[in-house]
Amino acid sequence: MAGAVRMSKSHLVRTELDGLLAGLAVGDPVPAERELAIRFGVARETVRQALHELLVEGRIERRGRGTVVSKPKLVQPLSLQSYTEGAVRMGRTPGRVLVSWADIGADAEMAAALGVRRGAKVMHLERVLLADGDRIGLESTYLSVQRFAWLRKSFDPTTSLYAALRASGVEFGAALERIETALPSPHEAALLGTTTAMPVLMLNRRTVDVDDHPIEVVRAVYRGDRVAFEAFLADR
Amino acid sequence: MAGAVRMSKSHLVRTELDGLLAGLAVGDPVPAERELAIRFGVARETVRQALHELLVEGRIERRGRGTVVSKPKLVQPLSLQSYTEGAVRMGRTPGRVLVSWADIGADAEMAAALGVRRGAKVMHLERVLLADGDRIGLESTYLSVQRFAWLRKSFDPTTSLYAALRASGVEFGAALERIETALPSPHEAALLGTTTAMPVLMLNRRTVDVDDHPIEVVRAVYRGDRVAFEAFLADR
Repeated sequence: MAGAVRMSKSHLVRTELDGLLAGLAVGDPVPAERELAIRFGVARETVRQALHELLVEGRIERRGRGTVVSKPKLVQPLSLQSYTEGAVRMGRTPGRVLVSWADIGADAEMAAALGVRRGAKVMHLERVLLADGDRIGLESTYLSVQRFAWLRKSFDPTTSLYAALRASGVEFGAALERIETALPSPHEAALLGTTTAMPVLMLNRRTVDVDDHPIEVVRAVYRGDRVAFEAFLADR
Repeated sequence: MAGAVRMSKSHLVRTELDGLLAGLAVGDPVPAERELAIRFGVARETVRQALHELLVEGRIERRGRGTVVSKPKLVQPLSLQSYTEGAVRMGRTPGRVLVSWADIGADAEMAAALGVRRGAKVMHLERVLLADGDRIGLESTYLSVQRFAWLRKSFDPTTSLYAALRASGVEFGAALERIETALPSPHEAALLGTTTAMPVLMLNRRTVDVDDHPIEVVRAVYRGDRVAFEAFLADR
């Protein structure tokens, strides 16, 4: 990625591997570590480190006992569009798996964010996000039960929540998003089909409608090897 | 972070630790793993995993043989402002350490991004970003030598590049940013004072001026335990 002061061995191997991958197609097998070490004339450990970087970046992935070239990452635009729109734009089929949907009591922070009293009922909807059937993210959405109790009756949690809210007349106004990186908890790693050593992108969002009334708080983790965010910035 | 289906032991320990940290101040020592395992009545391995999560999230950090509560992360707004403005807004003193500043030949991708011929000279400026003297990021900026050769004469690389460009009459128009997570290479980890097991936020940016002429390509990595990005989104 970043330029090197001098071409270290690890940097050289990475450059060689980048060149090799550029000549392969999605799903093609990547040569074994041992073979690459001989080809590049370096220690297996150096190749292992470079392959691990590529794995974390989502350029390659394990398949059975081998390693193959991955599909490009799903690029999610930072916008008030839903996950569905981001996935479809990339030619991927979006999907969702319901993990849990339960009412909880708002703690002080959640109450302030959603504009409800402390202890008020908050709906917590937890879903795994899929792209072409692959698990790419885990999303927890929190909504005021008082405002959105009707979702329980008519909302299918395997579909777009934003579409359902918009259809009911909710007009999205603005959102404040914070993006961080973390390692997933064992719970998150299990639901994402990854390990606690593979970094995730962590997103915290609070969305308000055009009248500045809170709609939702979202806490999501996305597999770092499968998702990238994109932002278009223009000067004010 | 994300809600749990059932309160697993690791989730419980994390909740207890969050409560404990909430009662401590920046720089306060965190009790030892062994002591916490006894206090929570769980295995040391469970405490170790939770402490590792907190370390990666930048809530705690190693100091000598112990562990202390960290400063809050530096929150960088996604905007056309410079790093300086983001740091100052957080009450932190920004700084930069020059790593390298050399001309390279543009490959096909870089040539297209900067609007120069393939093989044309491109200035590569690599700097470590500091906040209050702590290493928080490593930034590689690429600029066309033809357009920006004057920087060599008058620009102090420990200061804001954006301020120097603006002072010379460059008007920033827009930028497209891609945000990903990765593990740092050994080169990057060494310059950031971290390890190759600690995730970083990776940012790729291309900036154009108000006439849509390319200004720069930036490839930066930020320590995930010290930096968060923030975006304000409004509906179009």
